[in-house]
Amino acid sequence: MKDKLKIFCCGSNCDLTQDIADVLGLDVSPLKISRFSNDNLSVQIQENVRERDVFVVQSLTTPVSEHLMEMLITMDALRSASAGRITAVIPYYSYARSDKKDAPRISITARLIADLLKTAGADRVLTMDLHSAQVHGFFSMPVDHLTAISTIADYMKNKANKENMIVVATDAGGAKRAGRFAEKLDAPIAIIDKRRLSDTEVAQGEVVGNVRGKDAVIFDDEIATGSTILETIKTLRKAGVGKIYVSAVHAVLCGEAAGRLKEAEVEEVIVTNTVAIPEEKKLSNMVILSVAPLMAEAMRRIHTGESVGALFPH
Amino acid sequence: MKDKLKIFCCGSNCDLTQDIADVLGLDVSPLKISRFSNDNLSVQIQENVRERDVFVVQSLTTPVSEHLMEMLITMDALRSASAGRITAVIPYYSYARSDKKDAPRISITARLIADLLKTAGADRVLTMDLHSAQVHGFFSMPVDHLTAISTIADYMKNKANKENMIVVATDAGGAKRAGRFAEKLDAPIAIIDKRRLSDTEVAQGEVVGNVRGKDAVIFDDEIATGSTILETIKTLRKAGVGKIYVSAVHAVLCGEAAGRLKEAEVEEVIVTNTVAIPEEKKLSNMVILSVAPLMAEAMRRIHTGESVGALFPH
Amino acid sequence: MKDKLKIFCCGSNCDLTQDIADVLGLDVSPLKISRFSNDNLSVQIQENVRERDVFVVQSLTTPVSEHLMEMLITMDALRSASAGRITAVIPYYSYARSDKKDAPRISITARLIADLLKTAGADRVLTMDLHSAQVHGFFSMPVDHLTAISTIADYMKNKANKENMIVVATDAGGAKRAGRFAEKLDAPIAIIDKRRLSDTEVAQGEVVGNVRGKDAVIFDDEIATGSTILETIKTLRKAGVGKIYVSAVHAVLCGEAAGRLKEAEVEEVIVTNTVAIPEEKKLSNMVILSVAPLMAEAMRRIHTGESVGALFPH
Amino acid sequence: MKDKLKIFCCGSNCDLTQDIADVLGLDVSPLKISRFSNDNLSVQIQENVRERDVFVVQSLTTPVSEHLMEMLITMDALRSASAGRITAVIPYYSYARSDKKDAPRISITARLIADLLKTAGADRVLTMDLHSAQVHGFFSMPVDHLTAISTIADYMKNKANKENMIVVATDAGGAKRAGRFAEKLDAPIAIIDKRRLSDTEVAQGEVVGNVRGKDAVIFDDEIATGSTILETIKTLRKAGVGKIYVSAVHAVLCGEAAGRLKEAEVEEVIVTNTVAIPEEKKLSNMVILSVAPLMAEAMRRIHTGESVGALFPH
Amino acid sequence: MKDKLKIFCCGSNCDLTQDIADVLGLDVSPLKISRFSNDNLSVQIQENVRERDVFVVQSLTTPVSEHLMEMLITMDALRSASAGRITAVIPYYSYARSDKKDAPRISITARLIADLLKTAGADRVLTMDLHSAQVHGFFSMPVDHLTAISTIADYMKNKANKENMIVVATDAGGAKRAGRFAEKLDAPIAIIDKRRLSDTEVAQGEVVGNVRGKDAVIFDDEIATGSTILETIKTLRKAGVGKIYVSAVHAVLCGEAAGRLKEAEVEEVIVTNTVAIPEEKKLSNMVILSVAPLMAEAMRRIHTGESVGALFPH
Amino acid sequence: MKDKLKIFCCGSNCDLTQDIADVLGLDVSPLKISRFSNDNLSVQIQENVRERDVFVVQSLTTPVSEHLMEMLITMDALRSASAGRITAVIPYYSYARSDKKDAPRISITARLIADLLKTAGADRVLTMDLHSAQVHGFFSMPVDHLTAISTIADYMKNKANKENMIVVATDAGGAKRAGRFAEKLDAPIAIIDKRRLSDTEVAQGEVVGNVRGKDAVIFDDEIATGSTILETIKTLRKAGVGKIYVSAVHAVLCGEAAGRLKEAEVEEVIVTNTVAIPEEKKLSNMVILSVAPLMAEAMRRIHTGESVGALFPH
Repeated sequence: MKDKLKIFCCGSNCDLTQDIADVLGLDVSPLKISRFSNDNLSVQIQENVRERDVFVVQSLTTPVSEHLMEMLITMDALRSASAGRITAVIPYYSYARSDKKDAPRISITARLIADLLKTAGADRVLTMDLHSAQVHGFFSMPVDHLTAISTIADYMKNKANKENMIVVATDAGGAKRAGRFAEKLDAPIAIIDKRRLSDTEVAQGEVVGNVRGKDAVIFDDEIATGSTILETIKTLRKAGVGKIYVSAVHAVLCGEAAGRLKEAEVEEVIVTNTVAIPEEKKLSNMVILSVAPLMAEAMRRIHTGESVGALFPH
Repeated sequence: MKDKLKIFCCGSNCDLTQDIADVLGLDVSPLKISRFSNDNLSVQIQENVRERDVFVVQSLTTPVSEHLMEMLITMDALRSASAGRITAVIPYYSYARSDKKDAPRISITARLIADLLKTAGADRVLTMDLHSAQVHGFFSMPVDHLTAISTIADYMKNKANKENMIVVATDAGGAKRAGRFAEKLDAPIAIIDKRRLSDTEVAQGEVVGNVRGKDAVIFDDEIATGSTILETIKTLRKAGVGKIYVSAVHAVLCGEAAGRLKEAEVEEVIVTNTVAIPEEKKLSNMVILSVAPLMAEAMRRIHTGESVGALFPH
Repeated sequence: MKDKLKIFCCGSNCDLTQDIADVLGLDVSPLKISRFSNDNLSVQIQENVRERDVFVVQSLTTPVSEHLMEMLITMDALRSASAGRITAVIPYYSYARSDKKDAPRISITARLIADLLKTAGADRVLTMDLHSAQVHGFFSMPVDHLTAISTIADYMKNKANKENMIVVATDAGGAKRAGRFAEKLDAPIAIIDKRRLSDTEVAQGEVVGNVRGKDAVIFDDEIATGSTILETIKTLRKAGVGKIYVSAVHAVLCGEAAGRLKEAEVEEVIVTNTVAIPEEKKLSNMVILSVAPLMAEAMRRIHTGESVGALFPH
Repeated sequence: MKDKLKIFCCGSNCDLTQDIADVLGLDVSPLKISRFSNDNLSVQIQENVRERDVFVVQSLTTPVSEHLMEMLITMDALRSASAGRITAVIPYYSYARSDKKDAPRISITARLIADLLKTAGADRVLTMDLHSAQVHGFFSMPVDHLTAISTIADYMKNKANKENMIVVATDAGGAKRAGRFAEKLDAPIAIIDKRRLSDTEVAQGEVVGNVRGKDAVIFDDEIATGSTILETIKTLRKAGVGKIYVSAVHAVLCGEAAGRLKEAEVEEVIVTNTVAIPEEKKLSNMVILSVAPLMAEAMRRIHTGESVGALFPH
Repeated sequence: MKDKLKIFCCGSNCDLTQDIADVLGLDVSPLKISRFSNDNLSVQIQENVRERDVFVVQSLTTPVSEHLMEMLITMDALRSASAGRITAVIPYYSYARSDKKDAPRISITARLIADLLKTAGADRVLTMDLHSAQVHGFFSMPVDHLTAISTIADYMKNKANKENMIVVATDAGGAKRAGRFAEKLDAPIAIIDKRRLSDTEVAQGEVVGNVRGKDAVIFDDEIATGSTILETIKTLRKAGVGKIYVSAVHAVLCGEAAGRLKEAEVEEVIVTNTVAIPEEKKLSNMVILSVAPLMAEAMRRIHTGESVGALFPH
Repeated sequence: MKDKLKIFCCGSNCDLTQDIADVLGLDVSPLKISRFSNDNLSVQIQENVRERDVFVVQSLTTPVSEHLMEMLITMDALRSASAGRITAVIPYYSYARSDKKDAPRISITARLIADLLKTAGADRVLTMDLHSAQVHGFFSMPVDHLTAISTIADYMKNKANKENMIVVATDAGGAKRAGRFAEKLDAPIAIIDKRRLSDTEVAQGEVVGNVRGKDAVIFDDEIATGSTILETIKTLRKAGVGKIYVSAVHAVLCGEAAGRLKEAEVEEVIVTNTVAIPEEKKLSNMVILSVAPLMAEAMRRIHTGESVGALFPH
């Protein structure tokens, strides 16, 4: 395997890439990304990749366009350097929320990105917890779609007072995801029902379900600005909830998100390392679970042709 | 328009096709579908279609494979007969529920069907109320995705006791759709939370939300066997609900569905004519709203290049 | 080979699939085809197929649309389950007779099916005795096109009175195929010349060639309703022929075909097992030759990269 | 029409192109084909073609590769010059006989040529009397496939002794084509049955059918070297035939063909002008029927969107 | 035209877009580009574009990845909003210098970008002065490739002392472009010959050609950092040149470029407005020629189907 | 390697193919190219190629269209014979000079040829010294682009008087190539500056750079008619040059080229064997360097997956 499987890191999440490589007992292969004075990117693969089974790791985090272009150019360079097979490993696929037309004349950008990845040379994709399971179908190539739901649920199971927990979805669209998570915890669910007052305004939400006196575990796929989480927390507290845990797979944490979460004074914030979290955004009550063992095992199985589905049941 | 726009009916829903043509003041163009002794289908377009703007109407109802093949062969014949543009009009796109991989090594068939339609020559698609909005992104061609939510909501608004209504989703996955419907009615929502006991068994659901004494409007995209609806009704009655209305866009009504609905003794069953309902399945308390005006107007706008999005905001 | 080559059966001809697997010393891999209440098909591959060399066996027999859809969905599931290579094994490719435009504005459906197979993920095709050799060119992927002509000719060679035989084509379009068969038997040929009286009526045929007192071997690619064969038999008898043998590769045997053949009282009806023949259609004078050894050997050679052409000269 | 429809001639059959343009009342648009010293071809379109409906006429006659490349480069230049639609008009599509795999590891070149035409920019094809009707299905774009069978049959109908005529196919493969021609003449058919003695040798043919005393009309799609025709004539004379007429659509007339036909002393040789016939190959008893009116009418209808199938029933 | 032709501006060069629209007597159509908190871009077309002939103007200037993504998402939104034809108008195509493999395992990114534009929905491209003429061939769609060489040459012709001018290319690769420019001015040329000392170091250049006492017009396709221009100026001064003019089509002017040019104290710096130049980078001796009339006329001709090549001979 | 790697020769340069095979210790695999009487080509691969790694060698020399079609048909036959991978080895890619639009409405034929090769089944390309490095980007598959610059430079380094050499480009477009060659020799460069007097006439060139008394090495990618070289020689002699060497990679030598070179009385003419040179064109002062070792090593590395870039830095 050491000879044929190669891992490249495009720069957005080198710690995770290194962790994955460590699990597999491999080195991350060298790649040089530079930038010309006119802001054009240049990528050079610094190792022979002919006929190799290549994995390129990149999370589509800020700056998203840059990170995407780095990945596209890297894959194009790999393909023209005769790589045997190219797997785009995208722990956080950010455009996944642009997965439908909820306004006229907009792009279903999650589909466009899937097409761009194919154009640039990706043969397959390995990703985690897409915003909706349907995004899988946007790809015209094989996709292995992992989930950290079990990883997070396993962690929560060891908390005291597990019997008193209720899983909360931040809106109706997240009810299904929350349901799957609740199933692992054997807990009931509640959802926050929000209404559009106009195209731009959304009314304060109402809790659907009985949360009074319960310990709430808010569960979402990602925490971006944190404002949805904050409003959910307020709504829950008004409804007389007990302790609050916040959990999400992708810790995007834009702008004031970390600050807001700190002020919210919840028990714990449980996330994973699909997105690299800068030191200054790590809170004292933040638990960061690693997806490296999961991704490494998936990559090993993809490489050797073992069943991935058998390992990670959906 | 009369000269350039042509409508063909593939056989699964000729009443709706005729209604649409009537709205547009057009005739349905002749098409001959026959079957050889070896069960091979044969389609002949019986009118010149060179450079014409052609719409082919087919709902993917039982027998689905036959209806799909009729549509594919018809479009292939149209394309090789030099049709100018071919729009696949699919009022009910049945495979839309196969939109994700919820088990290993299965097909995301909603995507496959989209690809087959393209292979057979479809230039664009006009459809209604796909099971999930994301299925839109499975198509690599322009799609106009209409919804009958307003049609049904407008009907419900005229019911007495509107203030006491609550919209109910039959499972967590339908919460978002129910939310949009509830928004039109300015009513709260509740959902039925069901748990998988094993791969094949699902536990009795629990109501999330307060339904006691309210008039429930169950809303779903389709009624297939009716068993989900029936269980929802049971659960709601156990929770002390008032009157029950059942509403859905697609009246698939397989097997015993009509009988079950009859026995359920709800106030009304409100559906549309995206699926042709045989006389014996029409219940005395069934209201069938027509989507012909909506589809006809969309087809007229597609043909003349007017905005469809402006007409039917999502 | 046992580890890497996998055979799946889509349901239309499981006996043949099992025979092929037996020749190769393999098991048929498990596949679950189910049907939702709304008539949607669902296929689940029940074994890991990553990087495997997969063969999917399906004859496109009645119900053709169902059997085709089963095959398309199966291949799509295999592809997205990362199968290494997918060979569509189609012993009887039914739409092969729709291979040209003999009326305006019809589909060349044999080409459409070829394109659909590609869209669904087929990498190559293995088939037998296509209605015309040109259909091979409809595929944009490698095709191995086997023939049972030698299999049937070898059987006929052992009949008494071989010197007195004449091969008869049922119409002018079959003259070439009959000629190739006659060459193997070293026998002369005759053809039935039929004329269209109108678009729907065809006149009684005339024998071209001298059949008086000879033993006729009618040879065709398939027997569907049997009416063509029956008329050929009548015409031959009127022309003073001796014994009559009926032979064809594909025993489609629709509707009354078996009954008609029985009443025709010919010496023997020689066919192969490319189509599964139900017990009630098996006649006492029917000889069913197995193509399993031929197909198994072709599959073995495809898998190991040995020459298939060298084995089965056309 | 004069403004939007443009006809270009690639050089292999300028007389026919001019005749077609004359029928349509148009000029042939200027095109410059030159050749660099290193034998590279260079094509310049010498008129603005943006958004125009362009027809490029080229018969694939000797030198075939040159003529094909001229056509491909011309279409590529037209496409990149923003032509609105490009129709490849190929009166004689020479590779049509390479339409199947009758030996291992050969190319089905008729399909390859179809793919190359598409790659170079053809949007549709207009051609005549392909060697087999199935070649139509090799194209992944609309094809209008005309036939000169009626043109030749209409001419033959005016011959004396029409009641005594028999149509003769030069081999079993041509039986179907001969049958269609015979139908127009209301005459019986005979075929020449030839056997392969080895891979390279073919035995003298035998007449199947009764030709004694009849006037034979040999009918084929093309006359290449004329040797098949010559052998057919010998075989027919040995069988006691009366007068002999030779007819074919494409007068390829390679090498000694014209000389052989002259020595054969048949009544007449009836061909069309799909291939340009040099003066020295025109025999005194040769009748050259023009397909220009047929092709011009087809082009006019393609341009205006009228039915072509209605005009030329197959 | 006003109804059917629509111009959109993606944000990198709105002044030029407005100038083009003014020339055409049109308004720039509204487009909303916004950014989610997770840095995902969102584009909404704010006007009906069905069947319209749409032009999207975007120069690929800093930040290049952002500007490229804006353009790709905009075109995807236009396509799915059923735009009739989409022309990507790219006055400055920045990645054009990545047009070859001058190091192992790099991307020919100019080709990749061309493919991405096609994937996102571009039907054609309008651009100016690509770094090398060959980049035109990277596109698999029609390209109109304009040049500002005449625009700049016309300006220079009115300078005093025209007879004493010599055109200077900054390296051997620019000799051809300089030659074409010199031809318009009827002036001789010189080139700077530079040698690589190692992979990263390049030696001081030498002047090839006689520049002593002449007025030099340095001509390049773009000015990025200005360092190449600066070194050329030094080399020329050492070689005893007279006055120096600096001219280039694309005023990229990264980092210190403007400052360096100011210090270089040349007569004039002549550029165009293909790239938007911020006020602080405009020098007192800078002449900015507008390409708006040229681009507007090309767009008008593309829209109406008139010859573009006839207008702007290369 | 002997079993899996196969080399085929399409006929234009069998000596080079044999030399390459000799270096690799392999036999050239048998291929039969024949021609039907109607000038249609027929190719039969005469060895099993299933899953093999196949290299097809063909230089696109006169007659170019024939040689190209031979290659396309050969690759199509290989693909449909299930070859594992097909590499088009094109030592001389003649259409490479048609790499841009230097006149309106012409084809960028170098791109068209690249697309045709792909359509016919090429998986990758191995070629040498394309006219411009950008042509590499015309291919949508991996290309290994070798150069003989070092081969020729190494030869020249051993000449006496190396210190007095100057490399001369025959026009501005060749300045960059000459510069790279000069770098290897550590010599200065000069270029011939030529002006178009009209579309068809080009003025006598002028030397840019100081050549007086120096020994000139004219370097070009190919020698076609030799007229450019001859004019360069005249211009150099008028400018007082010393000895003259002529060097080029591709010895196309059309028409009078060899005669002209002979009369030019230069020291030596140094070329390679990418093009087969007939005996009568070999001059007494011609040095033919073999590229077989270079190409053989590249093919070996492509086959085994070793780095090609590492071996042949550009």
